[in-house]
Amino acid sequence: MKIKHIEHIGIAVRSLESAIKLYESKLGLKCYAIEEVPDQKVRTAFFMAGQTKIELLESTDPEGPIGKFLEKKGEGVHHIAFATEGLQENLDELSQKGIRLIDNNPRKGAEGLNIAFLHPRDTMGVLTELCEKPE
Amino acid sequence: MKIKHIEHIGIAVRSLESAIKLYESKLGLKCYAIEEVPDQKVRTAFFMAGQTKIELLESTDPEGPIGKFLEKKGEGVHHIAFATEGLQENLDELSQKGIRLIDNNPRKGAEGLNIAFLHPRDTMGVLTELCEKPE
Repeated sequence: MKIKHIEHIGIAVRSLESAIKLYESKLGLKCYAIEEVPDQKVRTAFFMAGQTKIELLESTDPEGPIGKFLEKKGEGVHHIAFATEGLQENLDELSQKGIRLIDNNPRKGAEGLNIAFLHPRDTMGVLTELCEKPE
Repeated sequence: MKIKHIEHIGIAVRSLESAIKLYESKLGLKCYAIEEVPDQKVRTAFFMAGQTKIELLESTDPEGPIGKFLEKKGEGVHHIAFATEGLQENLDELSQKGIRLIDNNPRKGAEGLNIAFLHPRDTMGVLTELCEKPE
């Protein structure tokens, strides 16, 4: 498989409002979209830093994945997403090479991308997402 | 301040050798440098993913920052570094805006960059580094 660039970094935050304030008024980045992803039980805010998006993730349900992450680990980096092409082929290749997959097949993520997660136990503790633009 | 792009993502790993194997033979990235930073008590391996480097960090001393991080949190993302210009001015500006600094003045980091860390308590739990190329 070939990684093109880092598509985004997902950061779990307790308050999207406070986090947007930090990124805009202190770090000087501009929030260009806020999107709710009911499937993932999150509200997200997006910023561009060069090629890479910063995706702030606020939980909308304590039982959702970000709610549980915040409860267990507190605020911080939740996942890294790589931009690739041929997502299904990449997943099949990684699986054959012994990487456990959270998603065996691509599904829809934020911003209409096809996405899939790899298991952090096989990626040095880093929850890793692969993304591709739909055709 | 202005963030140009994400300079690198620092990932704490227990074994640089195993982690390099994952990134090269499974994720398809190429390690282009291995560097020991005695000051930080780490050995690092670098990969390019588009504009952004992945910096794998193996501790050389359990009492060093990565040794302590691994002990407390296990493997995972340790910090995010933003590429900027005018590092000292940025630090002064952030300090005035209430962000606590770990480094009040730039110091030398890996690959000869001038670097400084912000305190994660003021950056939503994300240990954040600012970098600039020396003139």
